[in-house]
Amino acid sequence: MAKRKAYSLLWRTSRCLSNYHSLHSGSPHSIRRFSSGSVFRLLTPCIEQLRKNYQLSFPISSECAGVLPNAVFQRSFNLRSRFYGSTATLIQRSPLFSEVNSDDVSYFKSVLGENNVIQDEDRLQPANTDWMHKYKGSSKLLLLPRSTEEVSHVMRYCNSRHLAVVPQGGNTGLVGGSVPVFDEVIINMSLMNKIISLDKVSGILVCEAGCILENLESFLDDEGFVMPLDLGAKGSCQIGGNVSTNAGGLRLVRYGSLHGNVLGLEVVLANGTVMDMLGTLRKDNTGYDLKHLFIGSEGSLGVVTKVSILTPTKLSATNVAFLACNDYLSCQRLLLEAKRKLGEVLSAFEFLDNHAMDVVLNKLEGARNPLPGMYNFYVLIETTGSDESYDREKLEKFLFGLMEGGLVSDGVIAQDINQVSSFWRIREGIPEALMKSGAVYKYDLSLPLEKMYDLVEEMRTQLGHPANVVGYGHLGDGNLHLNITYPQYDDAVSSCSNWRHC
Amino acid sequence: MAKRKAYSLLWRTSRCLSNYHSLHSGSPHSIRRFSSGSVFRLLTPCIEQLRKNYQLSFPISSECAGVLPNAVFQRSFNLRSRFYGSTATLIQRSPLFSEVNSDDVSYFKSVLGENNVIQDEDRLQPANTDWMHKYKGSSKLLLLPRSTEEVSHVMRYCNSRHLAVVPQGGNTGLVGGSVPVFDEVIINMSLMNKIISLDKVSGILVCEAGCILENLESFLDDEGFVMPLDLGAKGSCQIGGNVSTNAGGLRLVRYGSLHGNVLGLEVVLANGTVMDMLGTLRKDNTGYDLKHLFIGSEGSLGVVTKVSILTPTKLSATNVAFLACNDYLSCQRLLLEAKRKLGEVLSAFEFLDNHAMDVVLNKLEGARNPLPGMYNFYVLIETTGSDESYDREKLEKFLFGLMEGGLVSDGVIAQDINQVSSFWRIREGIPEALMKSGAVYKYDLSLPLEKMYDLVEEMRTQLGHPANVVGYGHLGDGNLHLNITYPQYDDAVSSCSNWRHC
Repeated sequence: MAKRKAYSLLWRTSRCLSNYHSLHSGSPHSIRRFSSGSVFRLLTPCIEQLRKNYQLSFPISSECAGVLPNAVFQRSFNLRSRFYGSTATLIQRSPLFSEVNSDDVSYFKSVLGENNVIQDEDRLQPANTDWMHKYKGSSKLLLLPRSTEEVSHVMRYCNSRHLAVVPQGGNTGLVGGSVPVFDEVIINMSLMNKIISLDKVSGILVCEAGCILENLESFLDDEGFVMPLDLGAKGSCQIGGNVSTNAGGLRLVRYGSLHGNVLGLEVVLANGTVMDMLGTLRKDNTGYDLKHLFIGSEGSLGVVTKVSILTPTKLSATNVAFLACNDYLSCQRLLLEAKRKLGEVLSAFEFLDNHAMDVVLNKLEGARNPLPGMYNFYVLIETTGSDESYDREKLEKFLFGLMEGGLVSDGVIAQDINQVSSFWRIREGIPEALMKSGAVYKYDLSLPLEKMYDLVEEMRTQLGHPANVVGYGHLGDGNLHLNITYPQYDDAVSSCSNWRHC
Repeated sequence: MAKRKAYSLLWRTSRCLSNYHSLHSGSPHSIRRFSSGSVFRLLTPCIEQLRKNYQLSFPISSECAGVLPNAVFQRSFNLRSRFYGSTATLIQRSPLFSEVNSDDVSYFKSVLGENNVIQDEDRLQPANTDWMHKYKGSSKLLLLPRSTEEVSHVMRYCNSRHLAVVPQGGNTGLVGGSVPVFDEVIINMSLMNKIISLDKVSGILVCEAGCILENLESFLDDEGFVMPLDLGAKGSCQIGGNVSTNAGGLRLVRYGSLHGNVLGLEVVLANGTVMDMLGTLRKDNTGYDLKHLFIGSEGSLGVVTKVSILTPTKLSATNVAFLACNDYLSCQRLLLEAKRKLGEVLSAFEFLDNHAMDVVLNKLEGARNPLPGMYNFYVLIETTGSDESYDREKLEKFLFGLMEGGLVSDGVIAQDINQVSSFWRIREGIPEALMKSGAVYKYDLSLPLEKMYDLVEEMRTQLGHPANVVGYGHLGDGNLHLNITYPQYDDAVSSCSNWRHC
């Protein structure tokens, strides 16, 4: 029974988690396979039992948006990573899964209505392909549920028919987590886009998983609050995907991770069970806090259908500075100084190297260098506080001190909202600019800060021409986006960039 | 096998989790029992399987400190709570558990050394009793492991012998979670008190579970960082207990919960397995984030032995104001205003009612009312920023506006560090003052803000003389400490304060 329950979601996890390789200190060159299926099979009865104990109706939903593969250095040089090679050679479609037939389609139409069962090739094509056009599935069916109940019906049916599914949100993910591997049924969450409630005293927002991040941001803006996360993909990515991928983004340095901000979730499990963990309290220590299992598990345990999230109070004054540093060490020292001297107002600390800047200036329409010259590194600092003039004065004083001390080589503070946007456009436009540069290999790494840029330089040395190795990311969080562009996708680059051969 | 593995920790959970009652909207008067034992039995094989998949040496450690029982209103009036009646009538010692014999003692001495196996009555007595002297166990054996390895040996042995254990940290908890129910072996973590590392760029601290919170705070202070949590019990409570109980405390409003700040844990499971989840990265999305299961699960899943925690940068300027409001509505509006106008510097927002103030002034040595008169409610606001004069000016301007608008009736800003301490002494001294007032029934509630104080007034009406119903707590987090003092412990009060009869 437990085995059957694992079926309907198993495929969806195949790229995200089944290809989980680990390198550990004890055996630095060994590679082991992490089977999410077995974990799922084990967790399902736990959740079932909890449901029985609580006598609760349990809600699973999630999708992938805006998150990159992770390769993580642990302490010294223990490496934990997920990587994604050529899927054709790694994954075979399991004969245990059924293929969609006309009876299935009829059933889905009876549950969701004619218009929300999509078989049209033109509409399926974008849902079968990721934003990078790197991963392509061949799903014949896309479903658009409008409620948790409908998601539950769909999941229960798929489970009973052994149909593989892939939950999908804004499909803005960069690692192929939100597109089918083979012919999975796509459960797209776009129609579950209602805001359910906002507590205007505490700032606790409850909404459906398909709400687009930017729409939530706009709604909150009118009410005097902000979302505690911000991504370049905010115009398309959905909150359910953000939660399922534990998206960090540009404000993590200020507001922390979703594990801290998500107060509750409603989730539909593979067998259709609805897990109601949709708490709306800032503190809730009753029982085990199971919602954390679904944050960042990329839909492999269930489909997030509703989210309760703590939103910070909106502060009126935002200032942005764009700075240049000559070396990486200066960037690190700048971060330390910013934390100490701008601590309470610091809301973003992003960096990019000159390779990233080059790509942006050459490939991104309308992008302009805010500084008169080119430097080795650039840092974008954003402050958010409650007093425009004081915050600005403080930032100016801070930057003046840095320039005097030689820590930054040049810098400019945005004078108006247009300049704020144009500074941010440089940082947020890097993925788009890279995509226009050829095949892109994307890595998302968490590293001890001091070691972070060594890796970029090492990759550059190893790969040589014609690879362009670019480093940028959230320096405030120790999170590096290492991207490699190449004229075309090439297995030699892929295997080298899978670390162990480099 | 799974059943056997559950033994050694089962008792420890008996008070904390086995008596978990839930009232839900569907059946508002029904009471259901939550069996932590069954959950533990289910989770153990999951963890075991993960260990096999990762081929990792899995580390467990935890204890209870500074956390109160939770009774939580969910959304409208759905109630989830844990409560603690007269343990004698609720729990029977299970014959499945063995009693400690001389062979056991010899084994423990061989592992821990003669001095770390305590059988002396005088030394056992304080470990058998909680801080409130409300819960008393009858353990004959207290063990003081010095390393994860020793904890693992002890747990493995207890498991094989079916000896119940209770992990214990600073034993500052107020709900009896850190003392034995019967004759459990006490595993006291005090000797595991080493700081392992501090990354001075990122502020990531790694330490053993037995480190006293205040000692960590002092260590970090010298290095330019602060702990992201602060409790009245900081002089005794230990970080392992803080984590295991998901302690919130006075800075939650600024730095958020431990789910956001704890980056990694090392935990020893009931069967001695060591789970190494001791990550030191701010972002780590690899695999399932299992550490969250141990945060707030009160030692029922394992003993936390090491903690990795993100510590914020120390900011130099702290200001504290002590304000009076005439009604609870004004306190709520004050909170909203403070979030909007002091948002980036607000580090605490605590409130107490006049009953709490009375008790403090009458029972707490050296406590003085900072204001000339008595009011219905008091609010303590703390700001922490990087600029002493500006922050103070900002606070003064804020308070002036409030007084002009009539939102606060009176207020004073601390002029020096002594006044800061004396203002905090009032708020932090409430539990001590209450304890000197007779029998104390303590409740820790998370409620929607607007409903929070209704409950205090309702309890006051229901209980009448000679009960003294006191309300105070972390208004910024929607967290009320409802305390009732009575001349002596009385089952009539207990049953009434268990809500369903009121």
